[in-house]
Amino acid sequence: MIIDGKQAAADLRKILTIEVAQLKKDKGVVPGLTVVLVGEDPASEVYVRNKVKQTREVGMISNEIKLPNDTSEAQLLAVLQQLNNDDAVHGILVQLPLPKHIDESVIIAAITPNKDVDGFHAMNSGRLLNGEPGALVPCTPQGCIMLTKKHLGEDLSGLHAVVIGRSNIVGKPVALLLLQENCTVTIAHSRTKNLAEVCQQADILIAAVGRAHFVQASWIKPGATIIDVGINRIEDENGKAKLVGDVDFANVAAVCGAITPVPGGVGPMTIACLLKNTVAAARLNG
Amino acid sequence: MIIDGKQAAADLRKILTIEVAQLKKDKGVVPGLTVVLVGEDPASEVYVRNKVKQTREVGMISNEIKLPNDTSEAQLLAVLQQLNNDDAVHGILVQLPLPKHIDESVIIAAITPNKDVDGFHAMNSGRLLNGEPGALVPCTPQGCIMLTKKHLGEDLSGLHAVVIGRSNIVGKPVALLLLQENCTVTIAHSRTKNLAEVCQQADILIAAVGRAHFVQASWIKPGATIIDVGINRIEDENGKAKLVGDVDFANVAAVCGAITPVPGGVGPMTIACLLKNTVAAARLNG
Repeated sequence: MIIDGKQAAADLRKILTIEVAQLKKDKGVVPGLTVVLVGEDPASEVYVRNKVKQTREVGMISNEIKLPNDTSEAQLLAVLQQLNNDDAVHGILVQLPLPKHIDESVIIAAITPNKDVDGFHAMNSGRLLNGEPGALVPCTPQGCIMLTKKHLGEDLSGLHAVVIGRSNIVGKPVALLLLQENCTVTIAHSRTKNLAEVCQQADILIAAVGRAHFVQASWIKPGATIIDVGINRIEDENGKAKLVGDVDFANVAAVCGAITPVPGGVGPMTIACLLKNTVAAARLNG
Repeated sequence: MIIDGKQAAADLRKILTIEVAQLKKDKGVVPGLTVVLVGEDPASEVYVRNKVKQTREVGMISNEIKLPNDTSEAQLLAVLQQLNNDDAVHGILVQLPLPKHIDESVIIAAITPNKDVDGFHAMNSGRLLNGEPGALVPCTPQGCIMLTKKHLGEDLSGLHAVVIGRSNIVGKPVALLLLQENCTVTIAHSRTKNLAEVCQQADILIAAVGRAHFVQASWIKPGATIIDVGINRIEDENGKAKLVGDVDFANVAAVCGAITPVPGGVGPMTIACLLKNTVAAARLNG
């Protein structure tokens, strides 16, 4: 089975559209997301355009602040201060990467945790780690769990999940979410020995490595659920650029029980979960 | 080999004594730890007495605030506010458990993160999760890593560590520390299937379950390093109370490469790491 991330994202947006309408009706609150973009990275501009479009589609207010490439850290901090204090702004997202002269960690720490819809602030990481209420959880990991449940249903208890990759944005938070779902969780990475054997235990395998076709069919337990977080740009046999995941899709698909494609798997869920976090932030701040 | 936690704790206190003297000489700062005890739990009073004694032994200032059992949450918060604002107080520890009418999560959240020497505040959890500098890390997990290194040396890279237990105080933070040490890390718990097989993969096994003699010799990879965090009070064959760990010590000791005893293993390291955190807090706040 191929897990359709586009469809899952569309389903989530439908639910969010209803929730946004309900929030407006019940409390007069329209969730607002402000995206801050510094500089002119073409890939970032595409992402931001998508975010703005989808935010509006579900009935939320979308604002975009474009700042020139030579914006200083102090200037960006001043913008964030304003947004932190603006009651109409429920979610703040600073598009990464930032120009090299700005320290990303300083910027992330300057966003009010309850408006940090990327879920990168240490307060949100800590709430996630401790299982405290009110955590805004990074979007891609949330999407991974939802897609896993599309195939396996709500109860993941006792399943062995293997996460390859230990980034702050994907690997570590998705491992914690799987632990909350009562999975036995193994975190593997570049230093892991016998990676194939480790992966062979996985009922759920999350690949977040950033290497094209890295995960082999021989590593897969028959029937396993495979979530491919990788987005790697490679050239096909005709020299044309194409996007592929971290998993050797064609061969793995023949062994596993279900798999997310790239593109059209985790990617669409990430933006949908950003909208979900913005609704959650509107509730936290409302 | 039996890993001697008492000796390791004494070694750490020696190093801390030198660091404290150095801090005083270089910056005129004497690290100060204030322990707040609410009510009259006899076990807590013993712990606090030990903490006070050892804090003074390494040359730090120790203060103890004893509050009656009927102290209100608001009163305790007011005490914490004062301590947060007191520059001579570098570390604040509220002895848990608190009386039932006080919400522990509210109290933990009210301690300034940079004085939170227990490392329980969400900001410290988040810094640990994200690998950010300045994290005050829970004491018992730090002790587990130090004892592991007593046997295996500094480089744990590529070893498979299995943690049984997923508490906020031990299981999850020790898993993150092992990940920082480049171990492959598996977190197992009450919902884990085939726990014996999962443990058999462990080069390093951390048992933090709270069940006497739970971990069996047949679960142990020959030569593995076993860190026993459990402290369970049972009756011996003569009906006398005694303390045992989570591991079936006698039988496991015959198979493994090294093991921490209970008592005399992780326990002494926990208080020594509290002193270590207080020195770290004095540096953060100094």
